[in-house]
Amino acid sequence: MPDSSAPVPRGDEILDQIRGTFAEKGFDGASMQDLARAAGMSVGNFYRYFPSKAAIVEAIVRRDLEGVERDFAAVVSSDDPMARLREILRYRIEVELCEEDAPLWAEITAMAHRNPEIAGICERMETEIRRAFLGIFARVTGQPPAEAEARFAAHAAFLVMLVRAWALDWPQKRAGAVELKSLLLRSIDATLDEVARCEAQGASKARGLPCGA
Amino acid sequence: MPDSSAPVPRGDEILDQIRGTFAEKGFDGASMQDLARAAGMSVGNFYRYFPSKAAIVEAIVRRDLEGVERDFAAVVSSDDPMARLREILRYRIEVELCEEDAPLWAEITAMAHRNPEIAGICERMETEIRRAFLGIFARVTGQPPAEAEARFAAHAAFLVMLVRAWALDWPQKRAGAVELKSLLLRSIDATLDEVARCEAQGASKARGLPCGA
Repeated sequence: MPDSSAPVPRGDEILDQIRGTFAEKGFDGASMQDLARAAGMSVGNFYRYFPSKAAIVEAIVRRDLEGVERDFAAVVSSDDPMARLREILRYRIEVELCEEDAPLWAEITAMAHRNPEIAGICERMETEIRRAFLGIFARVTGQPPAEAEARFAAHAAFLVMLVRAWALDWPQKRAGAVELKSLLLRSIDATLDEVARCEAQGASKARGLPCGA
Repeated sequence: MPDSSAPVPRGDEILDQIRGTFAEKGFDGASMQDLARAAGMSVGNFYRYFPSKAAIVEAIVRRDLEGVERDFAAVVSSDDPMARLREILRYRIEVELCEEDAPLWAEITAMAHRNPEIAGICERMETEIRRAFLGIFARVTGQPPAEAEARFAAHAAFLVMLVRAWALDWPQKRAGAVELKSLLLRSIDATLDEVARCEAQGASKARGLPCGA
């Protein structure tokens, strides 16, 4: 537990302070000492918050997930969930995936390939996001959750893949890529259209195909 | 230059030998000593082949590009270039992007975010691949190269993004992802359909939109 006599920095503040160090030095290159220094803490105190780099990744992922969950809650409580979902994804691509996060996610992705603990954290994150998509798809199409999962699991996974592909690109590339962005957004829309078509055209048992196919 | 009295390993062989070390330890975690050991060479001799980690990345990228160029040459000389291109992309997704390459590309992507030299190497690689796509698109649609570039640069970039998104996913995820793969392949096909439609329907000046729009 954090020392109760010292001013207690919030975990979020620490994350903000160490982000840049990870981006600059990489996860392997940044020592716990570097990170503690960036957070303005002693190494011992830093370890109380984050006993390992995996714990830091977990905290970064958890924080990102909280934002995603807020977004999805707004979708679920909306009068037109599908339109709201399109808006939110568009906003994520156009605005929210800011340049400073890309190096961090690229690092985490690389780590996930060689560290099973990090892979597990990432996999759980993506599973939660896919589940949130599927909850919306079930609601929008009026399908029971199991049916929605059988039909749209790939659509949810593909949306996650598209957003992540954009997030991982280096900023120089994204900066001028207006038309690439528009193709990406059209592809996201087409994926959601297939789900929405299911609502409009009624049931089709074709798994992994457009619902109306 | 390599020592002419010693048996001379080919650069390709060295790359094969050190791939696993990068995948296991990461680019920062693997020292030049680790890499020399994996290649069965003295550190001094190893440095003659690869004076820096950037030189290794450059060699890995160059080798990968040679494979891509062979593929594109087969497309250009084919009777039905668009069909051959679809086949080759399908093969890349289904077979060629084998599990052992994913960690390496994830590492290179992460490095590109914090090392401008690596970013430059990656950017040149992607530029060459996009240019090869555009060459095929110009041929298929009968457009002058500059016109093809204006119309289809985003399509080429999007195809690169889709293939890379798949390549970067961790293997556990791709293994069971039959339906995700099929959505990805449909998205690749839809992107190529937009280009092909240009051939069928004739010119439209709408940049970044389907040619027939």
